[in-house]
Amino acid sequence: MARVFALIMAGGVGARFWPRSREKSPKQLLPIAGEGTLIQNTVARLDGIVETKDTFIVTNRIQKAPIIKQLPTIPPNNVLVEPIGRNTAPCIGLAALFMRRIDPEAVMLVLPADHIIKDVEEFHRIISTGIQVASETKGLVTIGIQPDRPETGYGYVQILEDKEKNPYSVQGVFKVKTFAEKPNLQTAERFLESGDFVWNSGMFIWRIDSILREIGEHLPELHQGLQNIDSVLGTEKYVPTLERVYGILRGISIDYGVMEKASQVYVLKGDFGWSDVGSWDEVYRIAEKDEQGNVVIGNVILKDVKNSIIQSNGKVVGVLGIEDLIVINTDDALLVCKRGKSQEVKEIVDYLKRKRMNEFL
Amino acid sequence: MARVFALIMAGGVGARFWPRSREKSPKQLLPIAGEGTLIQNTVARLDGIVETKDTFIVTNRIQKAPIIKQLPTIPPNNVLVEPIGRNTAPCIGLAALFMRRIDPEAVMLVLPADHIIKDVEEFHRIISTGIQVASETKGLVTIGIQPDRPETGYGYVQILEDKEKNPYSVQGVFKVKTFAEKPNLQTAERFLESGDFVWNSGMFIWRIDSILREIGEHLPELHQGLQNIDSVLGTEKYVPTLERVYGILRGISIDYGVMEKASQVYVLKGDFGWSDVGSWDEVYRIAEKDEQGNVVIGNVILKDVKNSIIQSNGKVVGVLGIEDLIVINTDDALLVCKRGKSQEVKEIVDYLKRKRMNEFL
Repeated sequence: MARVFALIMAGGVGARFWPRSREKSPKQLLPIAGEGTLIQNTVARLDGIVETKDTFIVTNRIQKAPIIKQLPTIPPNNVLVEPIGRNTAPCIGLAALFMRRIDPEAVMLVLPADHIIKDVEEFHRIISTGIQVASETKGLVTIGIQPDRPETGYGYVQILEDKEKNPYSVQGVFKVKTFAEKPNLQTAERFLESGDFVWNSGMFIWRIDSILREIGEHLPELHQGLQNIDSVLGTEKYVPTLERVYGILRGISIDYGVMEKASQVYVLKGDFGWSDVGSWDEVYRIAEKDEQGNVVIGNVILKDVKNSIIQSNGKVVGVLGIEDLIVINTDDALLVCKRGKSQEVKEIVDYLKRKRMNEFL
Repeated sequence: MARVFALIMAGGVGARFWPRSREKSPKQLLPIAGEGTLIQNTVARLDGIVETKDTFIVTNRIQKAPIIKQLPTIPPNNVLVEPIGRNTAPCIGLAALFMRRIDPEAVMLVLPADHIIKDVEEFHRIISTGIQVASETKGLVTIGIQPDRPETGYGYVQILEDKEKNPYSVQGVFKVKTFAEKPNLQTAERFLESGDFVWNSGMFIWRIDSILREIGEHLPELHQGLQNIDSVLGTEKYVPTLERVYGILRGISIDYGVMEKASQVYVLKGDFGWSDVGSWDEVYRIAEKDEQGNVVIGNVILKDVKNSIIQSNGKVVGVLGIEDLIVINTDDALLVCKRGKSQEVKEIVDYLKRKRMNEFL
């Protein structure tokens, strides 16, 4: 089996997890759902698939130190810093440069740092298949999640009804027809009904030379930038070059920049209890509930409270006579939100940004 | 006009105002509704009626120092401390002893420290009438509030349909038929309909010798205790005697201990924008609301929020997609409560007591 690198993308803030998630303690560095932070769990989940010395993390300046602290088994030099976030395509390209220096024919596993996966055994099985397909075909593999509800919080991937089956179809590997952005409910219901849509998990598998080749073909500007960076890799010119290149790069996702345009794209259907825990509503959905349907963390006193998620650290919280509420209490900020509305938490963060209330970001 | 003393009763904690109201910063010491604390406003409201040197306050050990600090015009010696709260009858009896030493024929105005009165001019008019009636009749006068809704949070006083009008009836002074405890909604509606019930405001007016005479007649134990205290007033035996007497006294309200039994009791109908601000629901009711029906204090960001009261000190609060909610955020404690349920806040305080979580009391 080919050597396997992992890229864990840890650049985001998780604005929808305000006020728990903050610039200095973003979602992936928090124990959002039980023990271990999300990024710690993401690394632990790779045990047996990728060695820690082959695991790279791309993040930003603010998160670098806490990430190194949370992940003592990862070599600190494997924690790469982007000067500014430019979405996933530049992030993946940058990490690929480092990996190519070690082994250009190796496989690269791309994983967001902030997902939850309940069935690790099944996850390993799927990943192993993906590594095999990526390795043998030199194509691009994305992991699609079998949907169980008309979720509007995820993007979707449509599977191609392929007349001539591809050689891996018995293993649940399909060609991709199209990528679809987050749908409205009506569209999501149609997707679910049609049976040929899966959730776009944001997890990818490919050979390092394959993804760099495809970037070269479909994202010439990024390709040029990466070449400039590559030429100074390991020198003192690396940081200023990186800053100059990122300064003029467009932000673009790998999905739209590469996956939609590449010719040999496979989607691998997975069903391993996946969640991107994208919002407090999602945390509520996946959490274990008590008899009243509540999910409670911290010093919380409830009376006549149903189907709510209440978190507090240190402070006491008294809750009376409410239903379907999200209450997140931190040292300096509080969120009170109707369940089903937690996608809009981002708007509070946007407001704080506009008002330059930086201490609460 | 007779000399007039005031007794401001400031012993309570205001458990229903948790988490703003605490043992060390109880309701009457807080600016619950706008500028000035409730006790400061209570004293200010007496301007022109009672001199500050004739204003006494009865409180407990914890509140003594902050009360003296909040009320610099009141002589500190006028702030009396009860070793333990025994309801209103002992409190009134104790203050009366001090006042009797100065002028036994003077009139005593008894006021809770934590009420709101919007129309001070009308309040003055009513109080002046009450002073006249108490002074001339040597009877007991209670202030009844003209009800405008079937409130279940107040006690009621039933007015006697007096065939032979009393000499003050033209001034809105009536004889009392009976005192009624807080009713249920059905009973409160009946009270409102009948037209002969008013709210029991807990404000009283009487001559000092009158109330001590009535205590002597109807509360012999308290009378004996007060005599023991009176005999050591101003000596070093005062505090130990007070503690001994209070140690064995029953807690009893002046309403049930004296007013219900006394023969010459008048009720004076007042309508001066009175509220006992007994709960967060009541604060919401009397507060000025914005266009969405919200009452907001502090650093609060609202989106799709209606008919709610949100308070925070210092911390930022984001609120999304809710209605009819009470959110009170303090440094170490948080309340989230459905509007209409704030009477039950006391149960949270009771829970904290049972669990000996004293730092949150």
